[in-house]
Amino acid sequence: MTAPPDHAKENHGMDMIARLRDRLGIAYGGDYNPEQWPEEVWEDDVRLMKEAGVSLVSVGIFSWASVEPRPGEYDFGWLDRVLDRLAGGGVAACLATMTASPPPWLTARHPEMLTVRADGQTITPGGRQHYCPSSPVYREHAARLAEEVAVRYAGHPALAMWHVGNEYGNVIPCHCEVSAAAFRRWLEARYGSVEELNDAWSTSFWAQRYGSFEEVLPPRSPAPFRNPAHNLDYARFTSDELLACYLVEKEVLERVTPHVPVTTNFPPSLRPVDLWTWAPHVDAIAYDAYPDPADPDAAAKVAFNYDVMRSLRGGQPWLLMEQAPSAVNWRPRNAAKPPGTMRLWSWQAVAHGADAIMFFQWRQSRGGAEKFHSAMVPHGGPSTRTFREVRGLGRELAAARALAGARAPRAGAAIVLDWPSWWALEGEAHPSSDLRFLDAAWACHRPLYDAGVACDVVRPDADLSGYPLVLVPNLYLVSEEAGRNLERYVEEGGTLVMSFFSGIVDPCDRVHMGGYPAPFRRTLGLRVEEFRPLAEDEQVGLSEGAGGVWTEEVVLEGAEAVASFTSGALAGGPAVTRNRLGRGTAWYLATRPVPATMRALLDRVREEAGVGPVLPGLPDGVQARARRSADGLRYVVLNHGSTEATVELPAPMRDELSGAGPFTTLHLAARDVKLLRPA
Amino acid sequence: MTAPPDHAKENHGMDMIARLRDRLGIAYGGDYNPEQWPEEVWEDDVRLMKEAGVSLVSVGIFSWASVEPRPGEYDFGWLDRVLDRLAGGGVAACLATMTASPPPWLTARHPEMLTVRADGQTITPGGRQHYCPSSPVYREHAARLAEEVAVRYAGHPALAMWHVGNEYGNVIPCHCEVSAAAFRRWLEARYGSVEELNDAWSTSFWAQRYGSFEEVLPPRSPAPFRNPAHNLDYARFTSDELLACYLVEKEVLERVTPHVPVTTNFPPSLRPVDLWTWAPHVDAIAYDAYPDPADPDAAAKVAFNYDVMRSLRGGQPWLLMEQAPSAVNWRPRNAAKPPGTMRLWSWQAVAHGADAIMFFQWRQSRGGAEKFHSAMVPHGGPSTRTFREVRGLGRELAAARALAGARAPRAGAAIVLDWPSWWALEGEAHPSSDLRFLDAAWACHRPLYDAGVACDVVRPDADLSGYPLVLVPNLYLVSEEAGRNLERYVEEGGTLVMSFFSGIVDPCDRVHMGGYPAPFRRTLGLRVEEFRPLAEDEQVGLSEGAGGVWTEEVVLEGAEAVASFTSGALAGGPAVTRNRLGRGTAWYLATRPVPATMRALLDRVREEAGVGPVLPGLPDGVQARARRSADGLRYVVLNHGSTEATVELPAPMRDELSGAGPFTTLHLAARDVKLLRPA
Amino acid sequence: MTAPPDHAKENHGMDMIARLRDRLGIAYGGDYNPEQWPEEVWEDDVRLMKEAGVSLVSVGIFSWASVEPRPGEYDFGWLDRVLDRLAGGGVAACLATMTASPPPWLTARHPEMLTVRADGQTITPGGRQHYCPSSPVYREHAARLAEEVAVRYAGHPALAMWHVGNEYGNVIPCHCEVSAAAFRRWLEARYGSVEELNDAWSTSFWAQRYGSFEEVLPPRSPAPFRNPAHNLDYARFTSDELLACYLVEKEVLERVTPHVPVTTNFPPSLRPVDLWTWAPHVDAIAYDAYPDPADPDAAAKVAFNYDVMRSLRGGQPWLLMEQAPSAVNWRPRNAAKPPGTMRLWSWQAVAHGADAIMFFQWRQSRGGAEKFHSAMVPHGGPSTRTFREVRGLGRELAAARALAGARAPRAGAAIVLDWPSWWALEGEAHPSSDLRFLDAAWACHRPLYDAGVACDVVRPDADLSGYPLVLVPNLYLVSEEAGRNLERYVEEGGTLVMSFFSGIVDPCDRVHMGGYPAPFRRTLGLRVEEFRPLAEDEQVGLSEGAGGVWTEEVVLEGAEAVASFTSGALAGGPAVTRNRLGRGTAWYLATRPVPATMRALLDRVREEAGVGPVLPGLPDGVQARARRSADGLRYVVLNHGSTEATVELPAPMRDELSGAGPFTTLHLAARDVKLLRPA
Repeated sequence: MTAPPDHAKENHGMDMIARLRDRLGIAYGGDYNPEQWPEEVWEDDVRLMKEAGVSLVSVGIFSWASVEPRPGEYDFGWLDRVLDRLAGGGVAACLATMTASPPPWLTARHPEMLTVRADGQTITPGGRQHYCPSSPVYREHAARLAEEVAVRYAGHPALAMWHVGNEYGNVIPCHCEVSAAAFRRWLEARYGSVEELNDAWSTSFWAQRYGSFEEVLPPRSPAPFRNPAHNLDYARFTSDELLACYLVEKEVLERVTPHVPVTTNFPPSLRPVDLWTWAPHVDAIAYDAYPDPADPDAAAKVAFNYDVMRSLRGGQPWLLMEQAPSAVNWRPRNAAKPPGTMRLWSWQAVAHGADAIMFFQWRQSRGGAEKFHSAMVPHGGPSTRTFREVRGLGRELAAARALAGARAPRAGAAIVLDWPSWWALEGEAHPSSDLRFLDAAWACHRPLYDAGVACDVVRPDADLSGYPLVLVPNLYLVSEEAGRNLERYVEEGGTLVMSFFSGIVDPCDRVHMGGYPAPFRRTLGLRVEEFRPLAEDEQVGLSEGAGGVWTEEVVLEGAEAVASFTSGALAGGPAVTRNRLGRGTAWYLATRPVPATMRALLDRVREEAGVGPVLPGLPDGVQARARRSADGLRYVVLNHGSTEATVELPAPMRDELSGAGPFTTLHLAARDVKLLRPA
Repeated sequence: MTAPPDHAKENHGMDMIARLRDRLGIAYGGDYNPEQWPEEVWEDDVRLMKEAGVSLVSVGIFSWASVEPRPGEYDFGWLDRVLDRLAGGGVAACLATMTASPPPWLTARHPEMLTVRADGQTITPGGRQHYCPSSPVYREHAARLAEEVAVRYAGHPALAMWHVGNEYGNVIPCHCEVSAAAFRRWLEARYGSVEELNDAWSTSFWAQRYGSFEEVLPPRSPAPFRNPAHNLDYARFTSDELLACYLVEKEVLERVTPHVPVTTNFPPSLRPVDLWTWAPHVDAIAYDAYPDPADPDAAAKVAFNYDVMRSLRGGQPWLLMEQAPSAVNWRPRNAAKPPGTMRLWSWQAVAHGADAIMFFQWRQSRGGAEKFHSAMVPHGGPSTRTFREVRGLGRELAAARALAGARAPRAGAAIVLDWPSWWALEGEAHPSSDLRFLDAAWACHRPLYDAGVACDVVRPDADLSGYPLVLVPNLYLVSEEAGRNLERYVEEGGTLVMSFFSGIVDPCDRVHMGGYPAPFRRTLGLRVEEFRPLAEDEQVGLSEGAGGVWTEEVVLEGAEAVASFTSGALAGGPAVTRNRLGRGTAWYLATRPVPATMRALLDRVREEAGVGPVLPGLPDGVQARARRSADGLRYVVLNHGSTEATVELPAPMRDELSGAGPFTTLHLAARDVKLLRPA
Repeated sequence: MTAPPDHAKENHGMDMIARLRDRLGIAYGGDYNPEQWPEEVWEDDVRLMKEAGVSLVSVGIFSWASVEPRPGEYDFGWLDRVLDRLAGGGVAACLATMTASPPPWLTARHPEMLTVRADGQTITPGGRQHYCPSSPVYREHAARLAEEVAVRYAGHPALAMWHVGNEYGNVIPCHCEVSAAAFRRWLEARYGSVEELNDAWSTSFWAQRYGSFEEVLPPRSPAPFRNPAHNLDYARFTSDELLACYLVEKEVLERVTPHVPVTTNFPPSLRPVDLWTWAPHVDAIAYDAYPDPADPDAAAKVAFNYDVMRSLRGGQPWLLMEQAPSAVNWRPRNAAKPPGTMRLWSWQAVAHGADAIMFFQWRQSRGGAEKFHSAMVPHGGPSTRTFREVRGLGRELAAARALAGARAPRAGAAIVLDWPSWWALEGEAHPSSDLRFLDAAWACHRPLYDAGVACDVVRPDADLSGYPLVLVPNLYLVSEEAGRNLERYVEEGGTLVMSFFSGIVDPCDRVHMGGYPAPFRRTLGLRVEEFRPLAEDEQVGLSEGAGGVWTEEVVLEGAEAVASFTSGALAGGPAVTRNRLGRGTAWYLATRPVPATMRALLDRVREEAGVGPVLPGLPDGVQARARRSADGLRYVVLNHGSTEATVELPAPMRDELSGAGPFTTLHLAARDVKLLRPA
């Protein structure tokens, strides 16, 4: 359990970020690992950075072994020279605390700090992030190093921001004895007594009743049919322990350099840690995004993640801390980004609220595990397509300085996301193992994305009153309070769209008794009699369209059937329902409509709810998002298609990138981007 | 090694079961786990049980932690009240010894009692049945608990039967040091000297000769190409150790309550333990069946298992101890049973000789790993389809009381099943890894099932003289004695149908020398020159039909070729042969005929052997089985199809379920059941 | 690191082998494991061996437990009798040192000598070859046993050759603490200082810098994204440690029996150990080949392996130490060899330079893990097709005595093979995981094989001047020296064909800086801008034909485009290029042409380079290879097809197998073999 957020701190953090933005505009740069190169290369680095328009680099993320080559012996000389050079070249540093990868001398002396997987295997050094987050040895050494770094560079002119650790969510959950002891303390703090724990975990099932907290173990595998509440609390604990690691260092930094903002980069996968609990503790959200160039849906999928990032701190602009200039190296086959794609996808992040466009990494490594990961300066040097595109984008972003700090106008739609519900939904022994939260979220988000509708992401217990439309994908787990919050939202005039298998269990993964989905029966005006998941790839006919993955027998209790099943065991029964409650409307989906059916359905719901696109009349594949600066609204318009597209604008606009216009008919080449401002 | 069965005990057990049957008729009910619910629910439970016609419930299977919350401290108060309420409501209890899942306090004190898998991973608590069956700690604690429970409830009016442990076959085989020591003792008892062991295990191969029993280890993985005789004996040992666990408790129960029958429920998978060795030690066979509603062959497959259960104790009626009212929760996608299916499949068990129809479980759990497993009282309460069907079935079974205790008329056909042969067949490094015993057994059983022919299951060394037809699927391993038994059966007039890769090895997995299949060469009148397994999904043409999985080169030595291969490397060679020996006939299949070919072949063999269906003229999808009570023969007729079916009966009959008739033309709705009695 | 080869020793070894060849001609026989059978069978064995023409048997490979049943107690009596019988029957013995499988008494006393896999699991006894190659316990016991065996049989008339261990490359790489210590010593010997190690392994990446060798661990899993240089050195170390095991025994044998040649059999998979480093230490190459009869490409694939074996010691005839008479037992489905195939494939080995045709094994085991592996004397005894074919082949080989010792005429083409490059190529985190060295090698070798062109296999730093054509498949890793060697080869007039992703890294897996592929840019006249691997099964069009697996953007720097991409992101760009350098030509393939395209391309390259087939005008499926004895050239002609084939010979020839001819038109039945000698 972690301390609640402190609002004074939050405001201070936002002030610091505002100052940083004034200094950098839309920040541009990447991870910079000069220790991999001889010093003669560094001069060239700074020269090329200036050529490329780089304003910010993340320095030292994996430098622990270089600055502390032996226990307690520090060698900062090389880093002094690096930072001096950067400062000299006008490049700011997002300086790492360097604690992401403990050096061999530390793990050799303290093998008990290594991560132990659920299956009992120890993660051996040789990769990175192989530490147990509950390890006092790790935390003490990390805090000491952070303090050394902070004290040394507190006043350095290059220092612009702190970068703590690296992608905490990618640390593999640890199940060692140290973790076991920490888990017991965490449970004791959460439940107070073992009786409460037994109740929360339903341990009367299968004789799992604990006599004391000392009997509790981490959910180590293999154990078929493990207690799901146990698993769920371990996911919560793991998120909290990683956050505690971050906070140990943040405390040091806040003390030594109270005027320097602090962040850490969230990994590409949203799932591992509960970002709602993390967000208050970073001064700006920083995110690493690696959409797959070989996936035709990559831009649509990552758009949801960007909406999450923008929403985590209420619309505050966020930092795209890492992306690949071209190919990555960790997929089975690593596609390069086609020409123009890196520019297009960078602007997409800006469209979704990013105030920094950063890459992993500045110069492509000569050796090591990531040498085939693309970089701003490839193995082939600056005379390469990649570097030319990097340089071109740097020029454009510098010209778009006015966008920095601009927030999006409030979206008309919001999607509900809750991490414990996500983790519990994807647990074992459910009616179907095909229920993945992201599939459900994408099923809601994609029709909005395709229709050009902006969308926020919200907690289930958030104030939803500002949103005409709220979508609730597979909110399997929900507290009674959050259930009432959603009910109130409808009663007060909102339009809710909820998909099946929502409202099933409480925060301890115990079924809400009283007929599925008990917390929403009144809201939805129905009862679910029985789940009938579909076979893999099976489809069921609907009176309009088709559904997949799941069906269920719905008994109407006030709702009306808007669509019915037309095939299968439930033919004739309700598939999509609508209920009027108070001043609002609640829709329910008893199956997952196929994309075309879902698009048609949400178009209709949006029309009833009065939620329109950012710009009207966008053709397929063209995306637009708005950001509002002090000097007015701007539209980022992106052609994700591979052919030219034409957009009829509602009013004359100019393109701030090319300086062209004003025009009312916009021509976009394939993969082109425009930054429009009403003329 | 376990003691041989005691026939006086067996007769006493059957008397006890007969008295129980007089009390309960066809028993009806399910697992009852009241400790998962507050006491106020219990009153409602008994009320609903009476409404549903429940006569028997299994109580306390996972209650160890509830009745012994701390070592040696017992809390039986809550269970007293539960049993008193049941007795008050006229519901009998199949009371568990509660030893299936050791509580956390025990495993925390004795982690050395946890199961260690072949790969060295310890099964951590958090699921169930995580004990080493050779553990003296487990056995002592289990025996002590069984004694406490037995002494306390010896005279309780609700007590009707003892339920020891739970699905022993589902305990994961243990490979810990305690198991290793027990295995050595078991080997010493089996082989006497290490020289005998070396001979039995062919250890001259790969320098595996043991100098002493102390050098023997469990067959821990990973070890590619492990000694197959070692693996086989470990499977025998595991079956025996689990049986020993059962017997430790049974001994206590027999001593304390000599007049209460004792059983344990066999798990759905038949494979793990040798049920021929277990069957003499239970007073009635109890079986848990979970056919998959999404599998169109589910009823046909489970029919074989039911035939095994009826045959294990020579036709004695058995107890369907668990089935699901609707969906289970442990498949990737868990289909619900369509309306009527639960009734149909319950009656199918009765048709195959069941005297009890029980469910897991009475009331659907609110929390824990099985909360999405259907129950008689669903989360939605009694106003649900499931509960309505449960109530309807209860009424029907109560009306069919006369069936209880009735045995089937002797079947005309029998299938040979031997557990060590099964285990050895599915070992590594065989000519083909596609040989699964159940596939071979189903290939024999299904044509009989489809033709409406009743079939028993027998040991290879059983007296087969009463069966006109005996089928031998893949009896890979066979002793010389059993080989002679089958030969004698043919000589004395029987009809034998044997499939390929039978008679290959002796009980130590050593090849019977003298040309394949040496023990059956004279019986079959042939020799097999070489195995030629087919590629995956490959088929070979036969002069009539087609075959799959396997072919082999057969050299006739007296047999005649009934069908030949028409394609492949063996084209022109014998595929199906027939040999006359003494007064009988032995057929041999050198491939696995596809289902239609096998059906035609077995129809012909049956005709020659004079084996007919239970009722003539059954249409596709309609199954009939007979049971004979003191007052005469009854037919259970089941329409597994999804459309109406018509059967022309050989004589006028009445339907005891509806009271209709007499009629000679029977109309069966889709999924309907009739209980016919000649008028 | 192992000592460099000693040329005097090599010559002595070749002399010994020449004497052996004079004694045996083309040796014929198999593994002989008499300890698996009672002594009465042995007499029959020798009688049947003579009947089958057996001249050499490998004795005692897994006899450790039989000759040393207890520590230090030897029982050689049975083996004396076996060898005496063999000598009496005129059968020579390739006598094993018997160390391949340590007996239970040894591993029970020294469990620390068992192999520990990368994932931490210990290989338990029960299979074979379960020893840690760095274990001093194993090495000492093995050396002691080798000495006992050598001393006892030094003067035995049956003794013809020593067979050390068994398939060393199949020993699973060990990661135990003993291995860790040995690895540190190996690294210290290789790098001298930890600074050099840090540089070689690029440890500045991810903070992996070592403070001392003591901090280094084996690359134990799981560790995603492990250091590739670390992995590569562990593969080198493993190969060296296994070689050290072999050398420990060889030293004993050389001392005790200086006039007996020594070898060990290489396993079917070429990959595990660096055979270039092993080859100088065996007196003759011995190889175990198990082509899959169910694979239509089996003969073509194994032909490459045979070319490797012939090339390992510069064309010296090699020994086919093991093959299966018919089926093996370790594939999922084990096809038997169709009639004639065993003969055909045996002659194929002779065609590729084999001077011995041996089988695993003589008599099919009754028990144990390999009892379903075919043998020369099957379970069914000598009255079987297999034994009849064995006998027939023995007769033929005896008649072909003149071939023994004959070398092939120098091939016109050579393929470059380097083990560290192979290992590094197949490492993690590469642009595509579809790059397997053997696929690339087969892509080069198969068109030569199909065209009847002989081909050698060479090191990248070999003297290539004698080859008109050199092919370089995926030489990912290359030293600067080897790079210059290939450049010089071209400059001096050679024709080089290099496929993509060659010349990328140095021997420490660090990218050669200066634009891909830096060591070959001048040779090839081009630069590679970016890799664009294809999706699974994706194909790209070429101006002639099509390619798969990979594409890349080539910038011409002097080379000309011979073929271009016609689809995909690189359409219009170079796909196949040709560069003139000095007196030679260098071709480059920026994709993997599909087989037909590759065939056409290599036909053209061969024509330009003047490289023709062994015999002109061979029809599809007919292979010919030549060997030159003192009395002239002979051709082995093999019809791999399943129909008759006709070959027009360039001159009249006789068939030495049938005595037919002379003829100029050769008729070959399906699967037939001819041994032709110009008339």
